[in-house]
Amino acid sequence: MGGDLGPAMVVDGAALALSREPGTRFLMFGDEDRIGRELARHAALKDAVSIHHTDVVVRSDDRPSQALRRSRDSSMGLAIQAVRDQSADVAVSAGNTGALMAMSKFMLKTMPGIERPALIGLLPTKRGTSVMLDLGANIECDEDNLVQFAIMGAAFASAILHVDRPSVGLMNVGVEELKGNESVRNAAEKLRAMELPFEFVGFVEGDGVGEGTVDVFVTDGFTGNVALKASEGIARFIASLLGEAFRSSVLSKLGYLFVARAMKALQARLDPNKYNGGVFMGLNGLVVKSHGSANAEGFASAVKVASDMVHDDLIHHIAQDLERLGAASNQSPHVAVS
Amino acid sequence: MGGDLGPAMVVDGAALALSREPGTRFLMFGDEDRIGRELARHAALKDAVSIHHTDVVVRSDDRPSQALRRSRDSSMGLAIQAVRDQSADVAVSAGNTGALMAMSKFMLKTMPGIERPALIGLLPTKRGTSVMLDLGANIECDEDNLVQFAIMGAAFASAILHVDRPSVGLMNVGVEELKGNESVRNAAEKLRAMELPFEFVGFVEGDGVGEGTVDVFVTDGFTGNVALKASEGIARFIASLLGEAFRSSVLSKLGYLFVARAMKALQARLDPNKYNGGVFMGLNGLVVKSHGSANAEGFASAVKVASDMVHDDLIHHIAQDLERLGAASNQSPHVAVS
Repeated sequence: MGGDLGPAMVVDGAALALSREPGTRFLMFGDEDRIGRELARHAALKDAVSIHHTDVVVRSDDRPSQALRRSRDSSMGLAIQAVRDQSADVAVSAGNTGALMAMSKFMLKTMPGIERPALIGLLPTKRGTSVMLDLGANIECDEDNLVQFAIMGAAFASAILHVDRPSVGLMNVGVEELKGNESVRNAAEKLRAMELPFEFVGFVEGDGVGEGTVDVFVTDGFTGNVALKASEGIARFIASLLGEAFRSSVLSKLGYLFVARAMKALQARLDPNKYNGGVFMGLNGLVVKSHGSANAEGFASAVKVASDMVHDDLIHHIAQDLERLGAASNQSPHVAVS
Repeated sequence: MGGDLGPAMVVDGAALALSREPGTRFLMFGDEDRIGRELARHAALKDAVSIHHTDVVVRSDDRPSQALRRSRDSSMGLAIQAVRDQSADVAVSAGNTGALMAMSKFMLKTMPGIERPALIGLLPTKRGTSVMLDLGANIECDEDNLVQFAIMGAAFASAILHVDRPSVGLMNVGVEELKGNESVRNAAEKLRAMELPFEFVGFVEGDGVGEGTVDVFVTDGFTGNVALKASEGIARFIASLLGEAFRSSVLSKLGYLFVARAMKALQARLDPNKYNGGVFMGLNGLVVKSHGSANAEGFASAVKVASDMVHDDLIHHIAQDLERLGAASNQSPHVAVS
């Protein structure tokens, strides 16, 4: 029931996803009539869907605390319950991000060895695609949070980017060992001392994101959120300048006809729908957030992320990594001194 | 003596700046022979320059601590001394950023009412030009630092962007009052309670930067540094995709001929040399950092920033604002409890 475009987009997206991965089954939670009407347009999808009716919907402007009260009967809550009860392998929602995060955390709980779940997402880069976390779930992060993010991020990159030994970098204001705050310095030290199933390259700077210098960018949720949105904003600004440039004269309009194909390829390369699908990592269950403004193609991308994580048995992998590394959970004693 | 292109670029830049603002006088510190040779190419500039010889140079890979030992005799140190001794109104350097920051802080000291100096810079946006601070001088910032940054940033925007009542926003992960960490929430509360000589609009998100939603973006040095570099990286990535697109076929190469003029205008709009000139705000003297890779045009932009600050009597303005607002310096008692 979520997303700016509502059930029609979700159903179209599911149909696309099914055509790409036949055998997928969908449990759809929400208004039976509306979903049924949309399904009528997709003969093939109908057989792969079971509808679970509810009238209760989390609104886009509900606060997380309000949404939590609707955990038991809202379409969003029921979808997460299905994951908890293992009647679904993964939940995908285009609804209210804060509500989805709060409900997922409340209903699925954090995995052993993880102190805080993080929001991870895909980014287009010069080298291809990278992932970044945390994108805003945790405003302040200590060294152990960052170490855990690195481990989860690498496992996610293996599952989604199909890289055997992903490269992982910690975002910082410089690459030298002494740069940055205590959290990043200590996290780097801990990661360097571990025998990791991925390649920890140390610190990376902001411009590494466009460059794609590593597969996994690890940072706190404040920096990650601001940096991601700043990048999106700059990309939109340049796109608008480009549009103006092509419209600026008869000559440049004519020129556009010659380069239209290359420009469309460029647009497709940066299309946010291709990089759709933020995941809450670190819970006892998989939940994918599809961007509210995503179209059916975008929703299908989010379902693909969901499906890749299931095929890879991602939670199991992370649990194994955490167990092997030990150090991820905060095992050093906390001593109160006064 | 600084910058990737050395004295030739600096002298060419000074010549450009002089042609745009006749009457400017330059004190040049460094190798007399090399500077003299470069000056020979610029008859008009020669009369506006006095050369102050020194053999000692801060290298680009010197640590701040090493550079500090060369405060008294290096070209960088002598330029800052000239500001301290009021034989110059402002210093401009294309040298080692960390060294310049450390030396400036050591030799000029922080202004009364300012706890920490910040690095401020110019950004191209959809609306025109905005400024952002801190870009990396302070890794961790408390609420008073952020309030002081807002006051300094607004004064800088008035001087450089020629806006009477600049709009100022605090970078955050959302615009709602409850978002973010304690520092940004408390800083916003303090700013809302003050009678400011600028318009405090509250929180702004990362994508506001490309949009240019405010004249002044205020954030801590960690977030500011990562967000700025991420934006630069994405811009370079898109530029490289554009280059590829125009080279991708005979047709698109032909098309480029038609749009070349518009594309060059776009490039000029985003040219980093136009937005060159980072300033260390909050010291008892003005120091401008020109980007190491800037060309003569870029260096002239940095000199223009320097000159605008001098004409505006920026330090005096900031001192007045701080005095009037009172609250900027941390006046609440600090109580140690154990």
